[in-house]
Amino acid sequence: MTKKIRVGIAGYGNLGRGVESAIYQNDDMELIAVFTRRKPEDLKILNDEIPVHALQDIEAFQGKIDVLILCGGSKNDLPEQGPALAKHFTTIDSFDTHADIPAYFEKVDASAKPNEKTSIISVGWDPGMFSLNRVFGEAILPEGTTYTFYGKGLSQGHSDAVRRVPGVKNAVQYTIPNETAVNQVRAGELPTLTTRDEHTRECFVVLEEGADPKEVEQAIVTMPNYFTNHDTTVHFISEEELAKNHSKMPHGGFVIRSGKTGEGNNQVIEYTLKLESNPEFTASVLVAYARAAYRLNEKGEYGAKTVYDIAPGLLSPRSAAELRKEFL
Amino acid sequence: MTKKIRVGIAGYGNLGRGVESAIYQNDDMELIAVFTRRKPEDLKILNDEIPVHALQDIEAFQGKIDVLILCGGSKNDLPEQGPALAKHFTTIDSFDTHADIPAYFEKVDASAKPNEKTSIISVGWDPGMFSLNRVFGEAILPEGTTYTFYGKGLSQGHSDAVRRVPGVKNAVQYTIPNETAVNQVRAGELPTLTTRDEHTRECFVVLEEGADPKEVEQAIVTMPNYFTNHDTTVHFISEEELAKNHSKMPHGGFVIRSGKTGEGNNQVIEYTLKLESNPEFTASVLVAYARAAYRLNEKGEYGAKTVYDIAPGLLSPRSAAELRKEFL
Repeated sequence: MTKKIRVGIAGYGNLGRGVESAIYQNDDMELIAVFTRRKPEDLKILNDEIPVHALQDIEAFQGKIDVLILCGGSKNDLPEQGPALAKHFTTIDSFDTHADIPAYFEKVDASAKPNEKTSIISVGWDPGMFSLNRVFGEAILPEGTTYTFYGKGLSQGHSDAVRRVPGVKNAVQYTIPNETAVNQVRAGELPTLTTRDEHTRECFVVLEEGADPKEVEQAIVTMPNYFTNHDTTVHFISEEELAKNHSKMPHGGFVIRSGKTGEGNNQVIEYTLKLESNPEFTASVLVAYARAAYRLNEKGEYGAKTVYDIAPGLLSPRSAAELRKEFL
Repeated sequence: MTKKIRVGIAGYGNLGRGVESAIYQNDDMELIAVFTRRKPEDLKILNDEIPVHALQDIEAFQGKIDVLILCGGSKNDLPEQGPALAKHFTTIDSFDTHADIPAYFEKVDASAKPNEKTSIISVGWDPGMFSLNRVFGEAILPEGTTYTFYGKGLSQGHSDAVRRVPGVKNAVQYTIPNETAVNQVRAGELPTLTTRDEHTRECFVVLEEGADPKEVEQAIVTMPNYFTNHDTTVHFISEEELAKNHSKMPHGGFVIRSGKTGEGNNQVIEYTLKLESNPEFTASVLVAYARAAYRLNEKGEYGAKTVYDIAPGLLSPRSAAELRKEFL
């Protein structure tokens, strides 16, 4: 084994913990340190031999870390941290506010390129592996339609929205792909689907004492943007039941490209994820792309990149010759 | 629209016809000519306005064709044509004799590189898209197992083998994934599967007049390599039935990576193809990669490449900025 890739983690919630765990599955990488905005001495990570430092001290680690994996949130953390840290480190992040990606890309690029750093942004499964499959599908089958379905999976944003409804003590929301629609798509029928056709929503809610279930249900199903465009079912359960049956973070979904070739032959490409842990899977994708970022930087390819710019062989610890021999 | 990519086709069987058809689905490409070893005047192609030339005259087209798509077979045509044509043209091929890929790669590379040409070899779905998904899967989930299933699909090699059995007038053979095994894999059970567990084989046979069905069946199911390791069913049908129900070339299959992250969470990635026409789909993949080969050659990236070396964004006619904005 040659020199290991030295990795740092910036931000340590569910995603950061998933990244720590994923790094230990990759023999060609070593975790140098975790950086946090909390008090370092208060943060307990999986391997207590790994040092934890204050994020504000991170610049002292220039030259000691090959790739920094940013595990902050897209709303408040990454818009600032991404461009700031890309000046000093080769970085990977999972920035997922789709509408803001072009502007974010430009900012990160402007930081990384003049400083000879490489930053792969918006890595994960959507954006990420799903984005790749949308592009592969359209490029291979130009005459066709792409469908993206999510779930069954826990949606953090929608769960938070339900928790903000007066009378709700705690709640989770699952997004569920509509089976009828999915089967039509898989059969190559190229249906025209509305938002309501594609997914249903299911909420499991613990009420505050004295709250009126009818009022709460009504408040949820009529919530603009979040629920009005979907058929939503609300279940009321106990705090114990919620803890017992709804504490995991499963997710997944599928990207289907359905198209026609020749004299009308149906061709269907489907990419499916069934994930017992959404943050751990996202973390695993980030770590594979960290390897690619390191290699690109070594080759002198600087600036911001996305999954579209990364040759798939760069993700694998194996050599190009081994991939050709064993995997092609 | 800027200048179109000028494409040539070398070899015109099912795959060549599929490539012709796929080129017409891509507005940024134009088909310059088809090259054949048959008499050019005898070859009928889909669009009779496109010129057909003798393959031996192809060198006169240097500088007139940006990418040449090689549509010959892996057994007899490509081992010779691939290295020979890579001296004069940027090429794409679907070389699929897995064991010979490393040697073939070296030969094509030795032709292409000093002549400033770019050649992407072994493009299609396996090798090709399935190969990509085997590498993505392992890189993302290092602790896990990869399964590749084929079918339900018509296997040309096995159909040919059945046709060579004495007493067989005509035949087709379908490879069928074993549903029990597939469901175990999809459920994340990580089963250990033998060849017999993974697929069954089904033959539809038209007998020569006077042939003994029992003898023919026995000869098929005991054929070494082709059938002894599988459970095989043989059906005897009429020539009319064969023509009516078994003249298409459907195929497909799936690559499943099943792995664990964190404290044992199951994560399953599945890539599935359901193809009504196997050669047309392979052709569509070749044409998408032809775009990538052209772009790489324009950038001065010469030599032999495989799908592992190609950044996915290069397959799309869209710009990198458009992909980031609309597809990420």
